[in-house]
Amino acid sequence: MNGLDRIRCVALRDKVMSAEQAIELIQDGAVVGLSGFGGAGEAKTVPLALADHAKAHPLKITLATGASLGNQIDGRLNEAHAIERRYPYQADPDLRKSINAGEVMYIDQHLSEMADHIRHHNLPPINVAIIAATAITEDGEIIPTGSCGNSANFVEMAEQVIVEIDNSINPILEGVHDIYVPKARPNRSPIPIIHAGDRIGTGGIQVNPEKIAAIVLNDIPDTSFHMDEPDDDTLAIARHLIQFFEGEVAAGRLPQHLGPLQSGVGSIANAVFSGFEHSNFHHLEMYSEVLQDCTFKLIDAGKMTFASGCSMTLSDSCAKHVMKNFEQYKGRIVLRPQEISNNPEIIRRLGVIAINTALEFDIYGNVNSTHVTGTKMMNGIGGSGDYTRNAHIAIFVSKSVAKGGAISSVVPMVSHVDHTGHDIDVLVTENGLADLRGLAPRERARKMIDICAHPDYRDALNDYFERACARGGQTPHLLEEALSWHANFEKTGSMHKTT
Amino acid sequence: MNGLDRIRCVALRDKVMSAEQAIELIQDGAVVGLSGFGGAGEAKTVPLALADHAKAHPLKITLATGASLGNQIDGRLNEAHAIERRYPYQADPDLRKSINAGEVMYIDQHLSEMADHIRHHNLPPINVAIIAATAITEDGEIIPTGSCGNSANFVEMAEQVIVEIDNSINPILEGVHDIYVPKARPNRSPIPIIHAGDRIGTGGIQVNPEKIAAIVLNDIPDTSFHMDEPDDDTLAIARHLIQFFEGEVAAGRLPQHLGPLQSGVGSIANAVFSGFEHSNFHHLEMYSEVLQDCTFKLIDAGKMTFASGCSMTLSDSCAKHVMKNFEQYKGRIVLRPQEISNNPEIIRRLGVIAINTALEFDIYGNVNSTHVTGTKMMNGIGGSGDYTRNAHIAIFVSKSVAKGGAISSVVPMVSHVDHTGHDIDVLVTENGLADLRGLAPRERARKMIDICAHPDYRDALNDYFERACARGGQTPHLLEEALSWHANFEKTGSMHKTT
Repeated sequence: MNGLDRIRCVALRDKVMSAEQAIELIQDGAVVGLSGFGGAGEAKTVPLALADHAKAHPLKITLATGASLGNQIDGRLNEAHAIERRYPYQADPDLRKSINAGEVMYIDQHLSEMADHIRHHNLPPINVAIIAATAITEDGEIIPTGSCGNSANFVEMAEQVIVEIDNSINPILEGVHDIYVPKARPNRSPIPIIHAGDRIGTGGIQVNPEKIAAIVLNDIPDTSFHMDEPDDDTLAIARHLIQFFEGEVAAGRLPQHLGPLQSGVGSIANAVFSGFEHSNFHHLEMYSEVLQDCTFKLIDAGKMTFASGCSMTLSDSCAKHVMKNFEQYKGRIVLRPQEISNNPEIIRRLGVIAINTALEFDIYGNVNSTHVTGTKMMNGIGGSGDYTRNAHIAIFVSKSVAKGGAISSVVPMVSHVDHTGHDIDVLVTENGLADLRGLAPRERARKMIDICAHPDYRDALNDYFERACARGGQTPHLLEEALSWHANFEKTGSMHKTT
Repeated sequence: MNGLDRIRCVALRDKVMSAEQAIELIQDGAVVGLSGFGGAGEAKTVPLALADHAKAHPLKITLATGASLGNQIDGRLNEAHAIERRYPYQADPDLRKSINAGEVMYIDQHLSEMADHIRHHNLPPINVAIIAATAITEDGEIIPTGSCGNSANFVEMAEQVIVEIDNSINPILEGVHDIYVPKARPNRSPIPIIHAGDRIGTGGIQVNPEKIAAIVLNDIPDTSFHMDEPDDDTLAIARHLIQFFEGEVAAGRLPQHLGPLQSGVGSIANAVFSGFEHSNFHHLEMYSEVLQDCTFKLIDAGKMTFASGCSMTLSDSCAKHVMKNFEQYKGRIVLRPQEISNNPEIIRRLGVIAINTALEFDIYGNVNSTHVTGTKMMNGIGGSGDYTRNAHIAIFVSKSVAKGGAISSVVPMVSHVDHTGHDIDVLVTENGLADLRGLAPRERARKMIDICAHPDYRDALNDYFERACARGGQTPHLLEEALSWHANFEKTGSMHKTT
């Protein structure tokens, strides 16, 4: 059988079975912990078999993951009505519809926290873990694939473990992971990462072999990731940011190499990081979640010396390039469990500069990352809160308008708050960068309107702000109007006033 | 001169001068770092002399502190129009008025973060630090008084230091402080606290003696703190909480001793902690900010074995009792800088159970701690965000109504968000305790309305929630109505609908 040789602990080869046999371990009502983060590293054959099975034999599970899954696994399970509860993050368009219809209970969570919530009984225990593996070592360690996510935690906490040996993964990946699982309280020690590149754990996930209830062989590859090319707006955002960093270095407020960088996933973040490629910055480092194409471009360009992440989420062409030249990257990247990549302790210690994408921000610097018009979930907060709260400099970026100008991303009051103004240092749109550090709310509003807002919305924002200031308060608002821009959009399809 | 003997480093006695002489060090436009946290441990003679001086000789300063100040220092400086900017926390009724009028720029901040913001140039440097001291040791270490706050950080970062020897402080306090200042990045190590009682630093603040520009002797005592006696509502909240903890222990989700506790300042928190006095819990610990009367009552009752804080904020009678019997408390309490008492790294490592007071919460579990009707600042977020985000269990308490029932503390949407639903585990009013862990927003709303809301507002909340659910979304809302309860209150003086 293809992949049997990857089970180097020979005694475990007896546990190989078909996906159809393995899913019999999953009972109706089970809490299932699935590997996968940023669309990379998920088990595939077993959950897809479960989706097929559930169509004929209805069952509901609670699905816990690292973060988002590829291969439409969320979508296929959702189509089979097999997901009752879901956490901590998802990015599937079909699942999203069921979530917003109130059919699937989605619990949006900071990615660093879920493992502790399970370990310390704020969330129910994991019954079955399904973990994608590059290999099982002679010692029985499970080598993850393209992400670490919560896999090590799930293996430790689950009653039973299904390992999916992923033949589609290049075995050269072995050695890139650094698995460290904090002890349960009250016996927890400091996490000993001092520099972004420190290795503190083992190369694979340690597991009691008796817990391994099934091993399934998989040939379905991870989903490849498509990234939009930068456009004029995202390039402008990148320029503003590079200019800001240059200014900070010139003023002596940031070191030449800036300090470890974190970047959210997506086209804007990708453009920003491309901006570094043509900058004068060197010796950059990442301490982030998802290593994207731009990470490897920066390494190739001699700009980045090290990148720590939780997953590699790459386009087909970049993945091929990386695997072909893996030896040159091996000492320059590491993949960690999300409890470590996103850990407040490390983020604050290292002084990470966090760059994430907002849906909208308001004139006082509050940020909405998740809810369209305050009600409909997009993907979830992901790691943005882990990084933003603890960052040295917390930055959010967004285009200043959406839907051809019908939506302003700078509003009087965000319709949903994921990040409070306390946590926000810098906001950027294509129009400019507002440095909000050390400013009171009224001062922030002035900058947000003058610098970040789209010119078409500035008069209306000024009008709101001035009338609100006339009423007074630390954070002046006209409560009866504060969300009228969103209500207007829902009614008329535009935030522009119709009168 | 009274207090000269407290300057045990004899060479420094030459620097003693009057407050009037010392304030000449403070220039117009200076950034002044003042000791003081929770109304304890502030310098007094010098800032009050500055307030008097500023009346005749206008000047504006940026005032940074640990947290709130006693002795009306904020009020007196505000009256003299001497405060241009203020951070990270205040609780003075007169200063609050100037803040809400937009006359003083107030920057509300997480208490753990300010030192790093200054150290790493997100905030301007400190020109002059004014630090209350119990004594200066033979080696020139400054022994703080009733709080540590940001004092060690201010001393390290300031250009010049004014020490105020506080004769009103019992010298027996020496030895209670544990001063640890993290190094600047990128050379920062883990903070080595593993248990709430660990001592990791020095007994006093180390300082380059050349930086000490003046020593002033002070006889004004710290303000004593008045705490309202528990009433029926706060006692009911305490009962719900104790019952919750008993249930968690019985279910095996919490250990017998619960784990380190944090409590916000105020009457409700005080009542909750009094609840422990008559409970079956033993071997309790605190890892908190402000040690209040109730802390010492729990130690006296044999319920609490150790309390780590940043300040001691006590009533007159409790302060007398504590000082008289200090030897028996000395091994059981420690005061730390707020960068350590409130540090996310430690709070998450220890698994602190955080109990804080909310102004209002909404049906989805978002919390407003700071802004009355979304606009007017009360005190500030303080340490509530530091603890809540990183707690093992994050709890907020509030009475279900205010102003004789005219205000509901459970609203469709909070008018200002300080803590997002992601961070909130449990909400409590006198009506009951809503355990929100692992629940999606729609499930949270059901519990909040049925358990926490005041019966008089349940129908209106149900009506809102049901109509919002009919429109759909992960977090259903009617944006045009979401803040109407607050707008109604502003217009009519009540959240009850007038129609």
